[in-house]
Amino acid sequence: MKAEIITIGDELLIGQTIDTNSAWLGAELSKMGIELNRKTAIKDGKQDILDAVSESLGRVDLVIITGGLGPTKDDITKNTLAEFYSCGMRRDDEVLAHLAKLFADRGREMLDSNKEQADVPELCHTLFNNHGTAPGMWFEKNGQVVISMPGVPSEMKGIFTEMCIPKLSDAFQLPTIVHETMVVLGIPESLLSRKLESIELSLPEHIKLAYLPAYNVIRLRLSGYGKSEANIKSEIQKYYSLIAKACGEHLLALEDTQPMKFLSNWFIDHKVSIAAAESCTGGLIGQSIVKNPGVSSIYNGSINAYANDIKVKELSVSQDLLNKEGAVSEACAKAMAQAVRIKFGTELGISSTGIAGPDGGTETKKVGTIYLAVSNGKETMVKKFHLFGNRERFMDRSVNAMAFMINLFLRKHYQFEPLELQD
Amino acid sequence: MKAEIITIGDELLIGQTIDTNSAWLGAELSKMGIELNRKTAIKDGKQDILDAVSESLGRVDLVIITGGLGPTKDDITKNTLAEFYSCGMRRDDEVLAHLAKLFADRGREMLDSNKEQADVPELCHTLFNNHGTAPGMWFEKNGQVVISMPGVPSEMKGIFTEMCIPKLSDAFQLPTIVHETMVVLGIPESLLSRKLESIELSLPEHIKLAYLPAYNVIRLRLSGYGKSEANIKSEIQKYYSLIAKACGEHLLALEDTQPMKFLSNWFIDHKVSIAAAESCTGGLIGQSIVKNPGVSSIYNGSINAYANDIKVKELSVSQDLLNKEGAVSEACAKAMAQAVRIKFGTELGISSTGIAGPDGGTETKKVGTIYLAVSNGKETMVKKFHLFGNRERFMDRSVNAMAFMINLFLRKHYQFEPLELQD
Repeated sequence: MKAEIITIGDELLIGQTIDTNSAWLGAELSKMGIELNRKTAIKDGKQDILDAVSESLGRVDLVIITGGLGPTKDDITKNTLAEFYSCGMRRDDEVLAHLAKLFADRGREMLDSNKEQADVPELCHTLFNNHGTAPGMWFEKNGQVVISMPGVPSEMKGIFTEMCIPKLSDAFQLPTIVHETMVVLGIPESLLSRKLESIELSLPEHIKLAYLPAYNVIRLRLSGYGKSEANIKSEIQKYYSLIAKACGEHLLALEDTQPMKFLSNWFIDHKVSIAAAESCTGGLIGQSIVKNPGVSSIYNGSINAYANDIKVKELSVSQDLLNKEGAVSEACAKAMAQAVRIKFGTELGISSTGIAGPDGGTETKKVGTIYLAVSNGKETMVKKFHLFGNRERFMDRSVNAMAFMINLFLRKHYQFEPLELQD
Repeated sequence: MKAEIITIGDELLIGQTIDTNSAWLGAELSKMGIELNRKTAIKDGKQDILDAVSESLGRVDLVIITGGLGPTKDDITKNTLAEFYSCGMRRDDEVLAHLAKLFADRGREMLDSNKEQADVPELCHTLFNNHGTAPGMWFEKNGQVVISMPGVPSEMKGIFTEMCIPKLSDAFQLPTIVHETMVVLGIPESLLSRKLESIELSLPEHIKLAYLPAYNVIRLRLSGYGKSEANIKSEIQKYYSLIAKACGEHLLALEDTQPMKFLSNWFIDHKVSIAAAESCTGGLIGQSIVKNPGVSSIYNGSINAYANDIKVKELSVSQDLLNKEGAVSEACAKAMAQAVRIKFGTELGISSTGIAGPDGGTETKKVGTIYLAVSNGKETMVKKFHLFGNRERFMDRSVNAMAFMINLFLRKHYQFEPLELQD
């Protein structure tokens, strides 16, 4: 069973919007055993839509369209699909009532352009939108399904999860694809690839290994194709364990996760509290903890000490240390991590100090240099990293480098080892 | 002149990587007056690549491929392109020397798999990669150009900027498309659309207005098509001014920018210092300032006071206020903003306190409620917002809602008005 995604919108083509919808949809389809054959982004022109839908239906039996449904004038998807299926439009009463309620709840006047959102092609089954105004649409003809959903990510995800997944399971006989992913940190792709070379060469034809590197994190994904889910799973599990062991201390998680999300959940589960003292990362490391639900049991706050005087005033870093070693130094990172755990009364303190660039680098401390520390009062572990890329990438890489530091620290001081590996 | 982008990689289709490359490329092409006709994401299979390249060359004369070039075994783009152009491979000496130097500089051993990155199809012109290992490739045949670049964003961007832009200007006669964008905050799309309806109806056929909403920010883009850049620009400018005026206090910037980036630069230019006291946003607002280069002149730090006891201890919020009003209240937001500007000695203090969810909501204070405050010592402005979406979206929306608050505050207390508008 194969599918294609068509995303509609000039904004995707001239680069003013980054398409996150199709990545999410691809992951959902993959979990259902539907192979995504292709994604196509097109302009919001009638002929572009008609061509892309026809072409996709020539290759696959399921086409999912996102975007081009909304209250403004640049949305033409709905009428184009009515033309594609040679049908007129009808106003959907259930959708209209939902819209009226939404507007009343928010105390906003309902405009004619809002009411028109309840109009759908006669031939479609309406996919009710609990998360917004424009409904989704489901067309079924000659065993082929075309789904159209609005481009707002929360609405698209809601409609797909609540309305499409159940209908897809009914409509198609789905084959079996199994993916198993692990998250690896602190090692370049080429070195990792060399470590795993002999395992990779021993993989059977129907099991594939992919390296998915992103900002100092590498996701390793094994994909198995076949008929029996149980058989593929157990076969994949064998190679998965071999690879996990070969990764050693670089292995963070035996699942597909964000490193700091994984660690935040570990902190919650193990009641280990943590606070951050950040310089160059300006709050992003603390935020990478806060963005996960439920962290209030292990996190109460952080200090962003961007300037030296704040490091002195709020974190008691000595002026002498700053004069001798500089703010971007092992000693400063250590002092910050130690101070913040005392200030916030937590079990662990973490810190960052570095040169995010583009300016501020020197011959001995180049742009991209960062010291990261983790302290539990007994030991303060500190390491220097050199992170590549611009200021924004530096920030993202810093968070993942911090996850690697925490991983090393937890392995040393806590029972932190990914689930018992099979032999 | 039209182009298409092909992105290669199973990871794009099963949703483990979000494609930011093609958005960046789309924006660059657009600036050059090259219209992006379509973007296609395909698997890293030989036939998929051959099909997609042939199809794109059937529609347009410029095809840009990203991804599928790297040191690991799942990369087959290079050999497939050699097959497409019916040529063999050659080892590029300049690239090999560059690789050897890179590895020596980093003190890393050069593996055979690394050396193979210097192999390119005989028919291509090598696009030197100053930012990484795998070179890009430029193929030219029958007036059609195919460019292939690695998928690592910094490398792709470097190669495109340094190597491709000059060659493209030489290779093609480029027509004229002019885009003008403005950033609007704090108003729903449907209300904005109504405000602008009469202007929109008066637009000539060759000028289009698009609404690009993203997390409480709307970008309005006027696009003009024609022959003379000067004529289109002056014609667009007329409508652009009309629209900007109609947006009133919701207009932040007469350019395409990130709201907090725009404001950070304004703070730097006007020497206005700022500090943040954040609760629910956990550091993201401070980070939205820090992530811009050069902010050390106006920013020295922030407090993330996630827990109530930290609000009391670090920001002197009174326990009495917290008992009576709660942490998620107008009074608490005010107290935090006032305290943080004094603590950090800045001209402005800003604060956030709210319920990011998914838990913690009540009948009167629902998930998504947030109070945002801005203080200059004389006045503390505070507003309540209700932000839709999950915890992560809540965070992003909060930053933009804060930008709207700052916009209102600066309009009231400073000469903060987008450039003098033409009459």
